[in-house]
Amino acid sequence: MTVQQTRNAVVLLSGGLDSSTVLAIANAQGFACYCLSLDYHQRHGAELVAADRIAKALGAKDHKTVQLDLSIFGGSALTDTQIAVPEHETIGIPVTYVPARNTIMLSLALAWAEVLEAHDIFIGVNALDYSGYPDCRGEYVKAFQQMANLATKAAVEGQPIVVHAPLIDMTKAQIIQQGQALGVDYSLTVSCYQADQTGAACGMCDSCRFRKAGFAQAQLPDPTCYQTALRQS
Amino acid sequence: MTVQQTRNAVVLLSGGLDSSTVLAIANAQGFACYCLSLDYHQRHGAELVAADRIAKALGAKDHKTVQLDLSIFGGSALTDTQIAVPEHETIGIPVTYVPARNTIMLSLALAWAEVLEAHDIFIGVNALDYSGYPDCRGEYVKAFQQMANLATKAAVEGQPIVVHAPLIDMTKAQIIQQGQALGVDYSLTVSCYQADQTGAACGMCDSCRFRKAGFAQAQLPDPTCYQTALRQS
Repeated sequence: MTVQQTRNAVVLLSGGLDSSTVLAIANAQGFACYCLSLDYHQRHGAELVAADRIAKALGAKDHKTVQLDLSIFGGSALTDTQIAVPEHETIGIPVTYVPARNTIMLSLALAWAEVLEAHDIFIGVNALDYSGYPDCRGEYVKAFQQMANLATKAAVEGQPIVVHAPLIDMTKAQIIQQGQALGVDYSLTVSCYQADQTGAACGMCDSCRFRKAGFAQAQLPDPTCYQTALRQS
Repeated sequence: MTVQQTRNAVVLLSGGLDSSTVLAIANAQGFACYCLSLDYHQRHGAELVAADRIAKALGAKDHKTVQLDLSIFGGSALTDTQIAVPEHETIGIPVTYVPARNTIMLSLALAWAEVLEAHDIFIGVNALDYSGYPDCRGEYVKAFQQMANLATKAAVEGQPIVVHAPLIDMTKAQIIQQGQALGVDYSLTVSCYQADQTGAACGMCDSCRFRKAGFAQAQLPDPTCYQTALRQS
């Protein structure tokens, strides 16, 4: 299917299942996609390698990875190796929450969008099958959009910014079904918070558990490469 | 004057006149100040050296400089040396505008505030004697605060974030008078967009012109070190 690409969009691409699906959706909507990844010194750096191959596989117009060491602030199991990634369900917002990460990523997307004269930003947040992070909710995305429309030269000059969160109300199974319909190869993606250097998943962290359950509910084979048969037992 | 410091605040500190004044104001309000600067590969890197000496001079609790190369996006005279800094008044938003810079800086401040369990962020934006940047207006700051209160774990748990912009309605002269009353040594600060490595100012860019006029209106001696007598003539 060839879609006429007339408008530029910045797509936040982590390298995981959700953001890869969002890229496919933005493509299908006819956007020329400029993918943005953030190397924040996350322990699962393998997701950045995944982001690169997904951007290529899905024909992104460009892909930039911004270097920004969030470990200088600490406070998250994803940037502080002294804090363990939970391997079972926890109460409240888990320690894998990275302070203000989505706000930082959306801000960077906004910067690039301004330079590209793009008025559309895509983010793969999802408020159903997720870990309860505050910056994954629809009201947060809406508030970011309102702020963005007061922040930028383009918006002030009458070109409003739209922040698209097409997965916001979807279950993980629905996301997978949608992505598969759009030709996403999920074996290329890495969701695990403690993926090894090859991208192989632990199968036990929050992110792995949501992903596994999604494939099961979608009644589709799970193409994820797991670290060892032992950890999976 | 000794003030009992009971609450932590993150203070965005560029190294210029405005943010240095804001640091002095936050100090006077009794906050323990954690100063945050952004090395975004700005052409006036001398402001970062200034930020460091001001944080020390004003007794900041800590000072971090985040490395984030915004020149990868380009689009501004401050990050792209191919775009000249205007040395006379321009119409509309000038090319020294850095796309989404304040949003990025506030997002980083928000991240650090969360880790510090601080609920107060200070920024030196000013909507009177300024260059017309959209992200220097009160309505923008308010919208950022609203977004921040939906973005963070602390806010969700009932500890709202306040974004303070104490200079928002002040003239440059009023800012200088306030800072002087609080003991700010403006000779330590660098405002010039094309300051040389020693921090000496061009005297002609927007930022220099606002600063110069401020000292003149405040009827105070201008302690700024200018580059050469020739350029000043």
